[in-house]
Order: sequence, then structure tokens, then C-alpha cells
Amino acid sequence: MTQTLIDTKALEQVLEEFADARNWHQHHSPKNLAMALTGEVGELVEIFQWRSEEESWQVAQAPETAEHVRQELADVALYLVRLASVLKVDLNAAIQDKLVLNAKKYPPL
Amino acid sequence: MTQTLIDTKALEQVLEEFADARNWHQHHSPKNLAMALTGEVGELVEIFQWRSEEESWQVAQAPETAEHVRQELADVALYLVRLASVLKVDLNAAIQDKLVLNAKKYPPL
Amino acid sequence: MTQTLIDTKALEQVLEEFADARNWHQHHSPKNLAMALTGEVGELVEIFQWRSEEESWQVAQAPETAEHVRQELADVALYLVRLASVLKVDLNAAIQDKLVLNAKKYPPL
Amino acid sequence: MTQTLIDTKALEQVLEEFADARNWHQHHSPKNLAMALTGEVGELVEIFQWRSEEESWQVAQAPETAEHVRQELADVALYLVRLASVLKVDLNAAIQDKLVLNAKKYPPL
Repeated sequence: MTQTLIDTKALEQVLEEFADARNWHQHHSPKNLAMALTGEVGELVEIFQWRSEEESWQVAQAPETAEHVRQELADVALYLVRLASVLKVDLNAAIQDKLVLNAKKYPPL
Repeated sequence: MTQTLIDTKALEQVLEEFADARNWHQHHSPKNLAMALTGEVGELVEIFQWRSEEESWQVAQAPETAEHVRQELADVALYLVRLASVLKVDLNAAIQDKLVLNAKKYPPL
Repeated sequence: MTQTLIDTKALEQVLEEFADARNWHQHHSPKNLAMALTGEVGELVEIFQWRSEEESWQVAQAPETAEHVRQELADVALYLVRLASVLKVDLNAAIQDKLVLNAKKYPPL
Repeated sequence: MTQTLIDTKALEQVLEEFADARNWHQHHSPKNLAMALTGEVGELVEIFQWRSEEESWQVAQAPETAEHVRQELADVALYLVRLASVLKVDLNAAIQDKLVLNAKKYPPL
């Protein structure tokens, strides 16, 4: 199947160059990147913890949280794509395979 | 800036249709999706917790973990993209802005 | 079995009074407290993410991290005990039961 | 201040003996234990992710989740106490200091 659901190639390249230019390869083991991903998800979750489900729909529009939520979503995405990249996992192929499994596990109504 | 570093549009569309077909919109509040993202990151981290940094490089190739790590990376990506989507956050734009901030905060050597 | 492995009663009482005095009961649903726990664990993990396993032994002694790690451990403990408390789960009994299960799952060498 | 808000000494001793008997000390670096804590919190959060705040009050009583939530709370507590223990952090003292800070940051109404 050659469909593209998500394309992260340009970002992977940029992140590799970013790490090159800062001598970060020594830090970017998969174990460490998985921890960094956790930390960023924790920061994202903090935005939602005292808000109700209903209020949570507004966080990307409300001026006091909009920029914060954009930044935390970006941080999670950066570490996720970086982690998949150093592990040489094709995220697009992995997602397609997982969606097939999910569709079997949860058939449409 | 019109560069595309990450393209998630097709995946966002597929996830919206997936939720439609299962009547999941009632569950997919941003607050709930942020929690689901946390849960999946927890499952991903468990793969790495007792492995050394050096061993962590092998998890996507080693037969006993390769499929597991692909699936957990996919799950994290699915909830992240879904969360950004329901919040109407342009993940590509958010990432570009964050990379500009990161480059200022951590100048190249 | 009436053994006490962990005693959290005094802390539970203090946390209840703390919430009373700030009108926080409306915020302290188990769902929200579980999210807050996540956020604090994320902050704790950030201390370790770029440190090697060997370096991680020093974080509670090294002057630049000692106070930080104490505070994050405390924050995780506060939300964990508060969550168990509002759920009316006896953490000591739950731990004893889990240790029995763990000892069966992982017999001593 | 000599007040005891939380007493984890007996549990710390049990966990040390548990690790001794299984030759687990090599795995129980603070970095690894912080990751294991994350994983368990992820499993705890999964119980709450699709439940409303209102529903979340019932998870420790509802027969389909009561035992699960007890076990996950225990798992989080076990890794938290173990992590503090290997770091030689006095959790009771850390909590007391943090409560003083919290009371200053959030004065009573």
C-alpha cells in the first residue's frame, strides 16, 4: 500500500541537521528521547488537568492558552518524529498497519 | 512561510471518518484525547524502561520488540494528530514556529 | 493481614483540609487528579531524560538538582495520595495485595 | 519539624529485599525507575481517559474497574517509594517542605 497518510520526511531531515549542528547525537538515544517525549506530554496534559471536558475545547482559541497549547503539541510532535527517525521506523507505514488493526478491533457501527 | 515539514491532512481526514463511523465524537474531547495520548506514551516508555541506552537502539530491529514499538509509536502519533485536529491546531505551522524558538534558545555550536 | 507497609493517614487528612481551605473540591475529581499526577511525573522525568543511568544516581545529591528532585517526588506523592484518598482506596492494603501478586509473577531466584 | 505525614519505611525495606532476592539492583537505577513510574501512571490514566469527571468518582467501587484501579494505584506507589528510596530522599520531609511552599503559593481563602 503506497498511500501517504502522514509525511514526516522533511521534518526528520531538519531534526537530524538540528542535532548535528549542536552535537546532540550523544544525547538522542531512543531511551532518552522516549523520556523527553514523556516530559512534553506531561506539560501538554497540565494545560487540561483543571479544565472540564467542555472547557478543553477552547484551549487552542483562548488567548491565555492558545500559544502554550500550540507549543506543547509541537514539542510532543518533535520528539515523536525524532524518536521514530532514530529508530528507523517508517511512521506512515506503522500508522497504516495500526489503523487496519484498529478497524478490526473496533468495527464500524 | 509555506514550507511543509510535516503533512498530516490525509491522516486527520481518516481519523475524523473513523470517529464518525463509530460514534466516537462524544468521547473525543481534547481533555480525553490528551489522557489517551498519555496512556499510549506510557506503553511506549515501558518498552525502554529496563533497557540501557545502548540496548534501546535495537528495539525497532529486535524481533521480540520490533512490532510492539511500531504499534506504540503509531498509537502515540494517532492520538497526537487527532488531538491537534479537534483543537484545530495546524501542527505544521506550530512546529515551524517552535523550531524558530528552539534555534534561538539553543544556538548551533 | 494487618501489617502497615505505608501509612498515609495524616497526609490524607492534611490534603483534605488543604483542599477545604481553598475550595478545591470542585477541581479534585479523580479524573483531574490522575491528570495532575501525570503532569508531575512528567516534570520528574525531565530531570532524568538527558542523564545517563550512572549520572541518575547523583541527582538527589548534586546541588543543582537536589532540591528540584525532592520537590518533584513530593508533588507526585501528594497527587497519588490525594487520588487514592478521594477514591477511598486503602493504599496500604492495595500495596500488600499487589506485592503478593508480584511475588507470584516474579518468584525469587 | 518531626511530624510524620507519610511513613514509607517498612515498604522501602520490603522493596529492597524484593530487589535483593531477584537480583534486580542492576535494573533499578533512578533513571529506569522514573521510566517505570511513568509507565504505571500511563496505565492508571487509561482507566480514566474515556470516563467523564462524574463517572471517575465510581471507578474504585464499580466491579469492572475496582480491582484494576487498586492495582494501578499500588504500582505507582511502589515505583515512587522505590525511586525515593534508591535516591535516599526522605519522602516525608520532602512532602512537608513542599506543603509549606504550596501554602505560600496558594494561600487559603
